Amino acid sequence: MAVLNQPTSVRKLAAILSADIAAYSALMGADEEGTVRKLREVREAVLPIIEKFGGRIIDLAGDGILAEFPSAVRAVESATAVQRCMAELNAQREPAMLFRIGVNAGDVIHEGERLYGDGINVAARLQAIAEPGCICISNKVHEEVRDRVALAFTDMGDQQLKNIARPVPAFSTSAHESTSESKEAWLKAKKPDFQRR
Amino acid sequence: MAVLNQPTSVRKLAAILSADIAAYSALMGADEEGTVRKLREVREAVLPIIEKFGGRIIDLAGDGILAEFPSAVRAVESATAVQRCMAELNAQREPAMLFRIGVNAGDVIHEGERLYGDGINVAARLQAIAEPGCICISNKVHEEVRDRVALAFTDMGDQQLKNIARPVPAFSTSAHESTSESKEAWLKAKKPDFQRR
Repeated sequence: MAVLNQPTSVRKLAAILSADIAAYSALMGADEEGTVRKLREVREAVLPIIEKFGGRIIDLAGDGILAEFPSAVRAVESATAVQRCMAELNAQREPAMLFRIGVNAGDVIHEGERLYGDGINVAARLQAIAEPGCICISNKVHEEVRDRVALAFTDMGDQQLKNIARPVPAFSTSAHESTSESKEAWLKAKKPDFQRR
Repeated sequence: MAVLNQPTSVRKLAAILSADIAAYSALMGADEEGTVRKLREVREAVLPIIEKFGGRIIDLAGDGILAEFPSAVRAVESATAVQRCMAELNAQREPAMLFRIGVNAGDVIHEGERLYGDGINVAARLQAIAEPGCICISNKVHEEVRDRVALAFTDMGDQQLKNIARPVPAFSTSAHESTSESKEAWLKAKKPDFQRR
Protein backbone atom coordinates (compact mmCIF):
# COMPACT_ATOMS: atom_id res chain seq x y z
CA MET A 1 0.00 0.00 0.00
CA ALA A 2 1.35 3.39 -1.02
CA VAL A 3 1.76 5.10 2.32
CA LEU A 4 4.55 7.43 3.37
CA ASN A 5 7.82 5.65 3.89
CA GLN A 6 8.91 4.52 7.30
CA PRO A 7 10.73 7.38 9.07
CA THR A 8 14.49 7.00 8.95
CA SER A 9 15.32 9.27 11.90
CA VAL A 10 13.88 9.39 15.40
CA ARG A 11 12.12 12.65 16.23
CA LYS A 12 10.57 13.86 19.45
CA LEU A 13 9.16 16.98 21.04
CA ALA A 14 11.51 18.22 23.73
CA ALA A 15 12.16 21.30 25.82
CA ILE A 16 15.74 22.55 25.65
CA LEU A 17 17.39 24.54 28.43
CA SER A 18 20.57 26.48 27.72
CA ALA A 19 22.37 28.19 30.62
CA ASP A 20 25.52 30.26 30.60
CA ILE A 21 27.29 32.37 33.20
CA ALA A 22 27.15 36.09 32.41
CA ALA A 23 30.55 37.76 31.97
CA TYR A 24 32.33 34.47 32.66
CA SER A 25 35.51 35.56 30.88
CA ALA A 26 35.66 38.77 32.95
CA LEU A 27 35.24 36.76 36.15
CA MET A 28 38.03 34.39 35.07
CA GLY A 29 40.26 37.36 34.24
CA ALA A 30 39.67 38.90 37.67
CA ASP A 31 40.04 35.74 39.78
CA GLU A 32 40.86 32.52 37.98
CA GLU A 33 41.09 30.14 40.93
CA GLY A 34 38.09 31.58 42.76
CA THR A 35 36.01 31.43 39.58
CA VAL A 36 36.91 27.81 38.84
CA ARG A 37 36.17 26.82 42.46
CA LYS A 38 32.83 28.59 42.40
CA LEU A 39 31.96 27.09 39.02
CA ARG A 40 32.55 23.63 40.50
CA GLU A 41 30.23 24.47 43.41
CA VAL A 42 27.63 25.85 41.03
CA ARG A 43 27.63 22.68 38.96
CA GLU A 44 27.41 20.46 42.03
CA ALA A 45 24.36 22.42 43.17
CA VAL A 46 22.66 23.01 39.83
CA LEU A 47 22.99 19.73 37.93
CA PRO A 48 20.96 17.74 40.50
CA ILE A 49 18.20 20.38 40.26
CA ILE A 50 18.01 19.89 36.52
CA GLU A 51 17.84 16.14 36.97
CA LYS A 52 15.20 16.42 39.69
CA PHE A 53 12.89 18.06 37.17
CA GLY A 54 13.46 15.31 34.63
CA GLY A 55 16.23 17.06 32.69
CA ARG A 56 19.05 15.21 30.99
CA ILE A 57 22.39 16.97 30.59
CA ILE A 58 23.37 17.01 26.92
CA ASP A 59 26.48 19.12 27.12
CA LEU A 60 28.72 20.84 29.67
CA ALA A 61 31.20 23.05 27.82
CA GLY A 62 33.07 25.74 29.76
CA ASP A 63 30.53 27.65 31.80
CA GLY A 64 27.56 26.40 29.78
CA ILE A 65 24.89 23.82 30.53
CA LEU A 66 22.67 22.33 27.84
CA ALA A 67 19.85 20.04 28.95
CA GLU A 68 16.75 18.46 27.46
CA PHE A 69 13.45 17.91 29.25
CA PRO A 70 10.44 15.83 28.22
CA SER A 71 8.22 18.69 29.50
CA ALA A 72 8.35 22.46 28.87
CA VAL A 73 6.65 23.07 32.22
CA ARG A 74 9.33 21.10 34.07
CA ALA A 75 12.10 22.86 32.13
CA VAL A 76 10.86 26.28 33.23
CA GLU A 77 10.31 25.12 36.81
CA SER A 78 13.85 23.79 36.78
CA ALA A 79 15.23 27.07 35.37
CA THR A 80 13.44 28.95 38.15
CA ALA A 81 14.84 26.61 40.79
CA VAL A 82 18.34 27.05 39.32
CA GLN A 83 18.09 30.85 39.53
CA ARG A 84 16.92 30.62 43.17
CA CYS A 85 19.75 28.28 44.01
CA MET A 86 22.25 30.68 42.41
CA ALA A 87 20.90 33.54 44.53
CA GLU A 88 21.62 31.47 47.64
CA LEU A 89 25.09 30.47 46.44
CA ASN A 90 25.91 34.10 45.63
CA ALA A 91 24.86 35.16 49.12
CA GLN A 92 27.33 32.61 50.55
CA ARG A 93 30.52 33.06 48.59
CA GLU A 94 32.35 35.27 46.09
CA PRO A 95 32.58 35.67 43.18
CA ALA A 96 28.89 36.26 42.47
CA MET A 97 27.78 34.42 39.35
CA LEU A 98 24.57 34.91 37.38
CA PHE A 99 23.13 32.55 34.83
CA ARG A 100 21.46 33.66 31.65
CA ILE A 101 18.95 30.91 30.85
CA GLY A 102 17.07 30.26 27.60
CA VAL A 103 14.31 27.67 27.22
CA ASN A 104 12.79 26.57 23.91
CA ALA A 105 10.63 23.65 22.78
CA GLY A 106 10.69 21.89 19.45
CA ASP A 107 10.54 18.75 17.40
CA VAL A 108 14.15 17.55 17.46
CA ILE A 109 16.02 14.60 16.00
CA HIS A 110 17.76 12.30 18.41
CA GLU A 111 20.38 9.73 17.63
CA GLY A 112 21.36 7.83 20.73
CA GLU A 113 22.47 10.43 23.28
CA ARG A 114 22.74 13.25 20.76
CA LEU A 115 20.11 15.78 19.73
CA TYR A 116 19.97 17.81 16.54
CA GLY A 117 17.71 20.56 15.31
CA ASP A 118 16.72 24.15 15.05
CA GLY A 119 15.04 23.94 18.47
CA ILE A 120 18.41 23.57 20.19
CA ASN A 121 19.98 26.54 18.40
CA VAL A 122 17.00 28.73 19.30
CA ALA A 123 17.40 27.81 23.00
CA ALA A 124 21.04 28.91 22.88
CA ARG A 125 20.10 32.19 21.15
CA LEU A 126 17.39 32.91 23.71
CA GLN A 127 19.93 32.31 26.46
CA ALA A 128 22.26 34.86 24.83
CA ILE A 129 19.58 37.59 24.91
CA ALA A 130 18.44 36.82 28.49
CA GLU A 131 19.33 39.33 31.19
CA PRO A 132 21.75 37.95 33.81
CA GLY A 133 19.75 36.16 36.52
CA CYS A 134 16.71 35.87 34.22
CA ILE A 135 15.04 33.30 32.00
CA CYS A 136 14.13 33.94 28.37
CA ILE A 137 11.58 31.60 26.80
CA SER A 138 10.14 31.25 23.30
CA ASN A 139 6.43 31.70 22.55
CA LYS A 140 6.20 27.92 22.18
CA VAL A 141 7.31 27.46 25.77
CA HIS A 142 5.17 30.39 26.91
CA GLU A 143 2.06 28.73 25.48
CA GLU A 144 2.74 25.63 27.55
CA VAL A 145 3.63 27.32 30.84
CA ARG A 146 1.51 30.50 31.04
CA ASP A 147 -1.43 28.77 32.73
CA ARG A 148 0.69 26.23 34.60
CA VAL A 149 3.60 28.04 36.24
CA ALA A 150 3.18 30.90 38.76
CA LEU A 151 5.67 33.31 37.15
CA ALA A 152 5.18 36.72 35.59
CA PHE A 153 6.41 36.95 32.00
CA THR A 154 7.33 40.09 30.11
CA ASP A 155 6.60 40.05 26.38
CA MET A 156 9.87 40.85 24.57
CA GLY A 157 8.17 40.84 21.16
CA ASP A 158 9.60 39.24 18.02
CA GLN A 159 13.32 38.60 18.35
CA GLN A 160 15.56 38.31 15.32
CA LEU A 161 18.02 35.69 16.53
CA LYS A 162 21.40 35.10 14.94
CA ASN A 163 21.28 32.48 12.14
CA ILE A 164 17.60 31.71 12.82
CA ALA A 165 15.47 32.32 9.71
CA ARG A 166 12.18 33.37 11.32
CA PRO A 167 11.75 35.91 14.13
CA VAL A 168 11.03 34.19 17.46
CA PRO A 169 8.47 35.80 19.80
CA ALA A 170 10.14 35.74 23.22
CA PHE A 171 9.19 36.30 26.84
CA SER A 172 11.35 37.09 29.84
CA THR A 173 11.00 36.43 33.51
CA SER A 174 13.16 37.25 36.47
CA ALA A 175 13.20 34.03 38.40
CA HIS A 176 12.96 35.33 41.95
CA GLU A 177 13.11 38.50 44.02
CA SER A 178 16.31 37.32 45.66
CA THR A 179 17.90 36.85 42.28
CA SER A 180 17.26 40.49 41.51
CA GLU A 181 18.76 41.52 44.85
CA SER A 182 21.79 39.41 44.18
CA LYS A 183 22.04 40.95 40.72
CA GLU A 184 22.01 44.44 42.25
CA ALA A 185 24.80 43.50 44.67
CA TRP A 186 26.78 41.87 41.90
CA LEU A 187 26.43 44.82 39.55
CA LYS A 188 27.61 47.11 42.35
CA ALA A 189 30.60 44.94 43.25
CA LYS A 190 31.81 43.82 39.84
CA LYS A 191 30.65 46.31 37.23
CA PRO A 192 31.50 43.82 34.46
CA ASP A 193 30.60 44.29 30.85
CA PHE A 194 26.94 43.35 30.56
CA GLN A 195 26.67 43.98 26.89
CA ARG A 196 24.75 41.24 25.19
CA ARG A 197 26.95 38.86 23.34
CA MET B 1 18.13 24.43 49.81
CA ALA B 2 14.95 26.34 49.00
CA VAL B 3 14.28 25.15 45.50
CA LEU B 4 10.92 24.31 43.94
CA ASN B 5 9.46 21.09 45.23
CA GLN B 6 9.94 17.85 43.37
CA PRO B 7 7.22 17.48 40.72
CA THR B 8 4.41 15.16 41.83
CA SER B 9 3.08 14.34 38.36
CA VAL B 10 4.87 13.24 35.20
CA ARG B 11 4.55 15.68 32.32
CA LYS B 12 5.75 15.45 28.75
CA LEU B 13 5.41 17.17 25.42
CA ALA B 14 3.38 15.03 23.06
CA ALA B 15 1.52 15.28 19.77
CA ILE B 16 -2.06 14.04 19.91
CA LEU B 17 -3.93 12.69 16.89
CA SER B 18 -7.70 12.40 17.00
CA ALA B 19 -9.51 10.74 14.08
CA ASP B 20 -13.19 10.15 13.57
CA ILE B 21 -15.27 8.90 10.64
CA ALA B 22 -17.46 11.62 9.13
CA ALA B 23 -21.18 10.89 9.20
CA TYR B 24 -20.57 7.54 10.88
CA SER B 25 -24.08 7.37 12.33
CA ALA B 26 -25.60 8.00 8.91
CA LEU B 27 -23.44 5.23 7.42
CA MET B 28 -24.52 2.84 10.18
CA GLY B 29 -28.14 3.78 9.61
CA ALA B 30 -27.86 3.09 5.88
CA ASP B 31 -25.90 -0.20 6.08
CA GLU B 32 -25.07 -1.54 9.50
CA GLU B 33 -23.29 -4.75 8.54
CA GLY B 34 -21.36 -3.22 5.67
CA THR B 35 -20.27 -0.30 7.86
CA VAL B 36 -19.06 -2.54 10.70
CA ARG B 37 -17.16 -4.74 8.24
CA LYS B 38 -15.55 -1.73 6.58
CA LEU B 39 -14.71 -0.21 9.96
CA ARG B 40 -12.88 -3.41 10.88
CA GLU B 41 -10.92 -3.25 7.62
CA VAL B 42 -10.15 0.42 8.20
CA ARG B 43 -8.78 -0.29 11.65
CA GLU B 44 -6.69 -3.20 10.43
CA ALA B 45 -5.14 -0.95 7.78
CA VAL B 46 -4.83 2.28 9.76
CA LEU B 47 -3.61 1.25 13.22
CA PRO B 48 -0.32 -0.22 11.91
CA ILE B 49 0.30 3.04 10.02
CA ILE B 50 -0.06 5.01 13.25
CA GLU B 51 2.32 2.64 15.00
CA LYS B 52 4.81 2.75 12.14
CA PHE B 53 5.18 6.49 12.73
CA GLY B 54 5.78 6.01 16.45
CA GLY B 55 2.20 6.54 17.56
CA ARG B 56 0.65 4.79 20.53
CA ILE B 57 -3.10 4.14 20.51
CA ILE B 58 -4.67 5.68 23.62
CA ASP B 59 -8.30 5.01 22.89
CA LEU B 60 -10.53 3.30 20.32
CA ALA B 61 -14.12 4.22 21.02
CA GLY B 62 -16.77 3.62 18.34
CA ASP B 63 -15.41 5.05 15.11
CA GLY B 64 -12.76 7.17 16.85
CA ILE B 65 -9.01 6.77 17.16
CA LEU B 66 -6.97 8.69 19.70
CA ALA B 67 -3.19 8.33 19.55
CA GLU B 68 -0.13 10.03 21.01
CA PHE B 69 3.18 10.58 19.23
CA PRO B 70 6.54 11.68 20.63
CA SER B 71 6.91 13.92 17.53
CA ALA B 72 4.52 16.42 15.90
CA VAL B 73 6.21 15.84 12.54
CA ARG B 74 5.59 12.09 12.73
CA ALA B 75 2.00 12.63 13.86
CA VAL B 76 1.24 14.75 10.77
CA GLU B 77 3.11 12.34 8.47
CA SER B 78 1.04 9.53 9.97
CA ALA B 79 -2.22 11.47 9.50
CA THR B 80 -1.30 12.03 5.85
CA ALA B 81 -0.52 8.34 5.37
CA VAL B 82 -3.84 7.43 6.99
CA GLN B 83 -5.77 9.70 4.59
CA ARG B 84 -3.95 8.18 1.62
CA CYS B 85 -4.69 4.68 2.84
CA MET B 86 -8.37 5.58 3.25
CA ALA B 87 -8.50 6.84 -0.33
CA GLU B 88 -7.23 3.43 -1.49
CA LEU B 89 -9.66 1.52 0.72
CA ASN B 90 -12.55 3.64 -0.52
CA ALA B 91 -11.60 2.88 -4.12
CA GLN B 92 -11.79 -0.85 -3.32
CA ARG B 93 -14.98 -1.28 -1.37
CA GLU B 94 -18.23 0.39 -0.26
CA PRO B 95 -19.26 2.17 1.89
CA ALA B 96 -16.81 5.03 1.37
CA MET B 97 -15.53 6.34 4.68
CA LEU B 98 -13.69 9.59 5.30
CA PHE B 99 -11.73 10.46 8.41
CA ARG B 100 -11.71 13.90 9.95
CA ILE B 101 -8.31 14.16 11.66
CA GLY B 102 -7.13 16.70 14.25
CA VAL B 103 -3.53 16.99 15.46
CA ASN B 104 -2.39 19.10 18.41
CA ALA B 105 0.76 19.27 20.54
CA GLY B 106 1.05 20.10 24.20
CA ASP B 107 2.55 19.51 27.60
CA VAL B 108 0.39 16.70 28.96
CA ILE B 109 0.30 14.71 32.19
CA HIS B 110 0.74 10.99 31.95
CA GLU B 111 -0.02 8.39 34.57
CA GLY B 112 0.91 4.95 33.38
CA GLU B 113 -0.92 4.42 30.10
CA ARG B 114 -3.30 7.35 30.56
CA LEU B 115 -2.86 10.93 29.38
CA TYR B 116 -4.57 14.02 30.73
CA GLY B 117 -4.62 17.64 29.69
CA ASP B 118 -5.97 20.46 27.64
CA GLY B 119 -3.79 19.36 24.70
CA ILE B 120 -5.89 16.22 24.23
CA ASN B 121 -9.21 18.08 24.28
CA VAL B 122 -7.91 20.56 21.70
CA ALA B 123 -6.94 17.69 19.36
CA ALA B 124 -10.49 16.31 19.57
CA ARG B 125 -11.97 19.76 18.88
CA LEU B 126 -9.71 20.28 15.88
CA GLN B 127 -10.82 16.91 14.55
CA ALA B 128 -14.46 18.01 14.88
CA ILE B 129 -13.88 21.11 12.71
CA ALA B 130 -11.79 19.27 10.08
CA GLU B 131 -13.37 18.71 6.68
CA PRO B 132 -13.94 15.02 5.86
CA GLY B 133 -10.76 13.59 4.31
CA CYS B 134 -8.68 16.47 5.70
CA ILE B 135 -6.34 17.16 8.60
CA CYS B 136 -6.75 20.13 10.92
CA ILE B 137 -3.72 21.10 13.00
CA SER B 138 -3.09 23.73 15.69
CA ASN B 139 -0.57 26.55 15.27
CA LYS B 140 1.71 24.66 17.67
CA VAL B 141 1.83 21.71 15.30
CA HIS B 142 2.09 24.02 12.29
CA GLU B 143 5.21 25.65 13.74
CA GLU B 144 6.88 22.24 13.99
CA VAL B 145 5.88 20.86 10.60
CA ARG B 146 5.77 23.84 8.21
CA ASP B 147 9.45 23.54 7.26
CA ARG B 148 9.62 19.77 7.63
CA VAL B 149 6.61 18.24 5.88
CA ALA B 150 5.82 18.75 2.18
CA LEU B 151 2.15 19.64 2.59
CA ALA B 152 0.25 22.83 1.79
CA PHE B 153 -1.61 24.29 4.76
CA THR B 154 -4.52 26.69 4.65
CA ASP B 155 -4.70 29.19 7.51
CA MET B 156 -8.13 28.81 9.16
CA GLY B 157 -7.49 31.72 11.53
CA ASP B 158 -8.35 31.73 15.24
CA GLN B 159 -10.87 29.04 16.08
CA GLN B 160 -13.09 29.31 19.15
CA LEU B 161 -13.29 25.66 20.17
CA LYS B 162 -15.97 24.27 22.46
CA ASN B 163 -14.95 24.38 26.15
CA ILE B 164 -11.45 25.67 25.28
CA ALA B 165 -10.74 29.00 26.98
CA ARG B 166 -8.41 30.61 24.43
CA PRO B 167 -8.93 30.74 20.66
CA VAL B 168 -6.69 28.25 18.84
CA PRO B 169 -5.12 29.34 15.53
CA ALA B 170 -5.69 26.40 13.19
CA PHE B 171 -4.50 25.23 9.80
CA SER B 172 -6.03 22.75 7.40
CA THR B 173 -4.61 20.47 4.79
CA SER B 174 -6.16 18.02 2.40
CA ALA B 175 -3.96 14.97 2.69
CA HIS B 176 -3.78 13.87 -0.91
CA GLU B 177 -5.29 14.53 -4.31
CA SER B 178 -6.81 11.07 -4.35
CA THR B 179 -8.48 11.79 -1.03
CA SER B 180 -10.21 14.74 -2.63
CA GLU B 181 -11.30 12.59 -5.56
CA SER B 182 -12.61 9.99 -3.20
CA LYS B 183 -14.41 12.73 -1.27
CA GLU B 184 -16.07 13.92 -4.49
CA ALA B 185 -17.22 10.40 -5.28
CA TRP B 186 -18.44 9.89 -1.77
CA LEU B 187 -20.36 13.16 -1.70
CA LYS B 188 -22.01 12.23 -4.99
CA ALA B 189 -22.93 8.72 -3.87
CA LYS B 190 -23.99 9.28 -0.30
CA LYS B 191 -25.07 12.87 0.12
CA PRO B 192 -24.92 12.45 3.91
CA ASP B 193 -25.27 15.31 6.36
CA PHE B 194 -21.89 17.03 6.40
CA GLN B 195 -22.79 19.65 8.93
CA ARG B 196 -20.05 20.03 11.51
CA ARG B 197 -20.84 18.32 14.76
